[in-house]
Amino acid sequence: MTTKTNETQIIVDPDVPLVRIIREFDAPPEKVFRAHTDPDLFKQWNGPDGYETEIETFDCRTGGSWRLKSSGEGWEGWFRGSFHEIRPNSVIIQTFNYEDIPDGVALERIEFEDLGVGRTRLTATSLVDSFESRDAFVASGMEVGVVEGYQRLDGILAAD
Amino acid sequence: MTTKTNETQIIVDPDVPLVRIIREFDAPPEKVFRAHTDPDLFKQWNGPDGYETEIETFDCRTGGSWRLKSSGEGWEGWFRGSFHEIRPNSVIIQTFNYEDIPDGVALERIEFEDLGVGRTRLTATSLVDSFESRDAFVASGMEVGVVEGYQRLDGILAAD
Repeated sequence: MTTKTNETQIIVDPDVPLVRIIREFDAPPEKVFRAHTDPDLFKQWNGPDGYETEIETFDCRTGGSWRLKSSGEGWEGWFRGSFHEIRPNSVIIQTFNYEDIPDGVALERIEFEDLGVGRTRLTATSLVDSFESRDAFVASGMEVGVVEGYQRLDGILAAD
Repeated sequence: MTTKTNETQIIVDPDVPLVRIIREFDAPPEKVFRAHTDPDLFKQWNGPDGYETEIETFDCRTGGSWRLKSSGEGWEGWFRGSFHEIRPNSVIIQTFNYEDIPDGVALERIEFEDLGVGRTRLTATSLVDSFESRDAFVASGMEVGVVEGYQRLDGILAAD
């Protein structure tokens, strides 16, 4: 049997300052959702390889908030946001901010779509208020973190 | 002495799906900010004339959340969101949702700029993920609510 890594698509919207990430997983929505909302699972796959996630706050409910530190390769940075809405196994709507750029706040939406046969399509959008900010975010190397993070998530889902 | 009502400018951004509201107040930033963050003051001026605001939750701090009901003229609706960041007398960043349209979430930013001589310029932006949603919001009659609400806020600030 050949194991084929699922492809991560990162699409910049032509009309609005939004990035759309599409990725399929070989696990049902319940498991992919849980890996996003359980802090002990989330910190295992968040971010690029070689970086560690330390969670300060992860009150993953509608109206809650989160704050975490990412560190690796001599760098560290704090990220934070609010959980606007958590719909179990379906949707997460949250804000996202890298604290060194406090005014650069993104509105994020993560959808978990049941493809049947134990598969899930995840669509994550990140909306900001200018094309310059969006393009800087894409150029910052976020693709490496997203692709490597989801590959580690594949491993967690397979082992679970 | 002639009392001139401060003008409310409502500007649709040509490039991104955002509405920008600009309004000056005859009060310093501390007072205008307090009228946005103290629920007993906020409910007195929020919304159009003839509508009542009932606050269920108003945990106005970074990482808190809010939920309120607006009712009047035989109509009622629930609104909710998260307070992503509260910077005293300076900035409020929050999410905003009308619960009948749960996927229509806006990212809002309210800036309080000190103009000196006891005056404040407020700039409030509301960002959504499509021009259709933005234009529907503007066409919904929000202008009446904004203009009338700020006129009642003028009265609260003058009496305070």
